[in-house]
Amino acid sequence: MHVQLTLNTPRRVCFTDITHHIKQAVNDSGIAEGTALVFVPHTTAGVTINENGDPNVLKDLEFALERAVPNTGFHHFEGNSDSHTKTLLTGPSLSLIITGGRLVLGTWQSVYLAEYDGPRHRNVHIKIMEG
Amino acid sequence: MHVQLTLNTPRRVCFTDITHHIKQAVNDSGIAEGTALVFVPHTTAGVTINENGDPNVLKDLEFALERAVPNTGFHHFEGNSDSHTKTLLTGPSLSLIITGGRLVLGTWQSVYLAEYDGPRHRNVHIKIMEG
Amino acid sequence: MHVQLTLNTPRRVCFTDITHHIKQAVNDSGIAEGTALVFVPHTTAGVTINENGDPNVLKDLEFALERAVPNTGFHHFEGNSDSHTKTLLTGPSLSLIITGGRLVLGTWQSVYLAEYDGPRHRNVHIKIMEG
Repeated sequence: MHVQLTLNTPRRVCFTDITHHIKQAVNDSGIAEGTALVFVPHTTAGVTINENGDPNVLKDLEFALERAVPNTGFHHFEGNSDSHTKTLLTGPSLSLIITGGRLVLGTWQSVYLAEYDGPRHRNVHIKIMEG
Repeated sequence: MHVQLTLNTPRRVCFTDITHHIKQAVNDSGIAEGTALVFVPHTTAGVTINENGDPNVLKDLEFALERAVPNTGFHHFEGNSDSHTKTLLTGPSLSLIITGGRLVLGTWQSVYLAEYDGPRHRNVHIKIMEG
Repeated sequence: MHVQLTLNTPRRVCFTDITHHIKQAVNDSGIAEGTALVFVPHTTAGVTINENGDPNVLKDLEFALERAVPNTGFHHFEGNSDSHTKTLLTGPSLSLIITGGRLVLGTWQSVYLAEYDGPRHRNVHIKIMEG
């Protein structure tokens, strides 16, 4: 099963929890054992897993990425080469395990669309594979 | 087939070779052609591939990550936002190819649990898919 | 279906577009619905997706990675610990969705072999899974 979501991201850099969408896709598929592949078809946004407890963790992630990849010294005319770099570091795809009809996720794990050049409309693809 | 490992990591930041566990899972599955998905259900540890020759490579990886993501300036109360950031950079999942009943791995490649906030008990999930 | 490519990379750090090879593998497989896994069996090169429009984006990626991971302070005797670190940050595998016999890719997305210690001969594995 293949589904596509559309999301609006609220800020230039932010993490949007999409875990419930993936769980919904797993439920809708009716597949008990398999994998879920999440794919982001953009070059300035990616997909990641991180903590869903203290929201300061997400703020600290934004800060640490900004410090590691400052938006200075670049040549691309759109002024978002930092966003492209953070996307390379984060990655565009994420693979998850389904067992007993449920996603395998740790207690503190949520799946996030990692927006690095918002606010924008963004698409997310989810593919459920049985096996 | 889906299996779960439990490991103890020895230090705050370290790389533990888990290649033999994945090879064992491939063997146990009896699957000749397919994929192996390795998934870490934590938010301060990930999974990566890197060199298994000179152990200085792993020390250099720790040093380079520490330099790129210093543990200063953060707000999260647990003091491990550097660990969360390194986990984002490393990723929680890794997909491998199985052909002829064996993992496709380069000569110098091993698969490592990347611990960024140990020592801890850690879980690793391995899913073998036929196809 | 499992295919292996061999490429020559032209410089120490560069991004080589391999999208057409993956599309060819999808076509050759005859599979309409499934996934494509791209795997790089090296420890100083990885695989990523990024922009295929302005070539300055790729130059900016090289610059930003060089700034985040300077090749100083390392112990590994081969002098390429920066390359190993960039490979950890990029990742060795990439999963893509196939639907209607075609890869799901955004308008600006191309798949690149990310070379961090060239020029070299490099291998790339592509695995097409139906489902």
